[in-house]
Amino acid sequence: MSYAFDPKKAITFITDFLSRQLTASGLGGYVVGLSGGIDSALSASLAVAAVGPERVLAVFMPYRTSSLDSQTDALNLISHLGIEHRQVDISPMIDAYFTRITEPLRTRAGNKMARERMAVLFDLAHETRRLVLGTGNRTEFCLGYTTLFGDSACSVNPIGELYKTEVRLLARAMGVPESIISKPPTADLWADQTDEGEIGVMYDEIDAILRRIVDEGERSMAALGQEGLKREQVERVVQWLNRNSFKRIPPPVAALGRSPVPSNIRLT
Amino acid sequence: MSYAFDPKKAITFITDFLSRQLTASGLGGYVVGLSGGIDSALSASLAVAAVGPERVLAVFMPYRTSSLDSQTDALNLISHLGIEHRQVDISPMIDAYFTRITEPLRTRAGNKMARERMAVLFDLAHETRRLVLGTGNRTEFCLGYTTLFGDSACSVNPIGELYKTEVRLLARAMGVPESIISKPPTADLWADQTDEGEIGVMYDEIDAILRRIVDEGERSMAALGQEGLKREQVERVVQWLNRNSFKRIPPPVAALGRSPVPSNIRLT
Repeated sequence: MSYAFDPKKAITFITDFLSRQLTASGLGGYVVGLSGGIDSALSASLAVAAVGPERVLAVFMPYRTSSLDSQTDALNLISHLGIEHRQVDISPMIDAYFTRITEPLRTRAGNKMARERMAVLFDLAHETRRLVLGTGNRTEFCLGYTTLFGDSACSVNPIGELYKTEVRLLARAMGVPESIISKPPTADLWADQTDEGEIGVMYDEIDAILRRIVDEGERSMAALGQEGLKREQVERVVQWLNRNSFKRIPPPVAALGRSPVPSNIRLT
Repeated sequence: MSYAFDPKKAITFITDFLSRQLTASGLGGYVVGLSGGIDSALSASLAVAAVGPERVLAVFMPYRTSSLDSQTDALNLISHLGIEHRQVDISPMIDAYFTRITEPLRTRAGNKMARERMAVLFDLAHETRRLVLGTGNRTEFCLGYTTLFGDSACSVNPIGELYKTEVRLLARAMGVPESIISKPPTADLWADQTDEGEIGVMYDEIDAILRRIVDEGERSMAALGQEGLKREQVERVVQWLNRNSFKRIPPPVAALGRSPVPSNIRLT
């Protein structure tokens, strides 16, 4: 299971990508939602390295049940990066919607929050003429562990091809504060939620399984077992992969045989 | 400019598509946001023809400035189709967000409303185990006359390859009430807004131009002029096409050369 990954090269490639994307857009910078977690911390750090702190606006969007640790970590990162920030409490908008529902399911509340944050980020991006920086990683993308048109929605995504374990390597290399790197990953949508608790497999195992199945095309359970991967965990990862595959493709459109729409038309 | 389009065949194709998509999803039906306009009226009518009125849930989501005509038309259609419906006033959520802004730009307010409606539809889809039915047409899609991750977001889109002028033909063939078909198209995001006023060209002309440029690949302004298409209108349509092309592609991801993620993995 050798796997070549060079954090330094990845950082150079990604910062160059972010710089070029911003130039191509003609806009003035990036806006990024900071959750207090490692993915958004790394994305913000890469954007600062790419286009400078004065062109990155951080937005912290707590709900009233969000953990105080998230806030502390987000504010620490903001001062560490030296970037401007805004705080938008999403509780009034979320509570206004669920007011008619006594006990909303936490998945429904969590999805609504993720979509509210997306809408706030795009609104502030419009106000300040910026691009919305994506913060979803490849592990989430493979598993579909994400809210469609919520946290997965963005203008440009710097870390979408990085597995979670690689996000950790890059975050360390970029100097993201250790408290953010070492805490258990969570969407912080309800108390005591952790990614690994919800998914049922630890990220180290998930990524090892995804690399073999997705990147290397392994389909033999016996082969995976011989490499020390546990059958139950492999099955769980494949279940997530298959069940959420709809999140990885554009919504199906009734096809009447129309041509694709070109992106840069020049008339003569 | 001969253009073969058979509304009857299109209806058969689309209803079959909607029926198959629902079966494949394993869910119980469609939920559709009705605006009172022709696109959502046609989408809802096609869904009813495809899977039956008992499996289509209509949601009317007015903002406090929405026109009363929109409501009348939406409710008329609901009773015409014999489908269940809910009404969700989005004013409290929208106003809770803009409370700190004295005079929000109407484009910002309009985008926030479109994204709120998307979030409500997906929440109700989750609650009732349904798919969100798309209501965007090909003309909007080409021009990018849509809110990204807002009205363009859905699970399945029946009319995304139909030009607006074809939407009218199909709506008539499906028996959509005449008051919905004949009123000026509007996103109804502010008073007196009309699509054609905002775009600056009438839909008949827009579609004629799009067919020649997009579907038939014409790039000569002189040739278009000889066919009676006005230079100023052609330029305006091309400007919309190019400016909003980012809305037609997935957000760019920093590419580290990773494999695409397969959608249906079977281990042996």
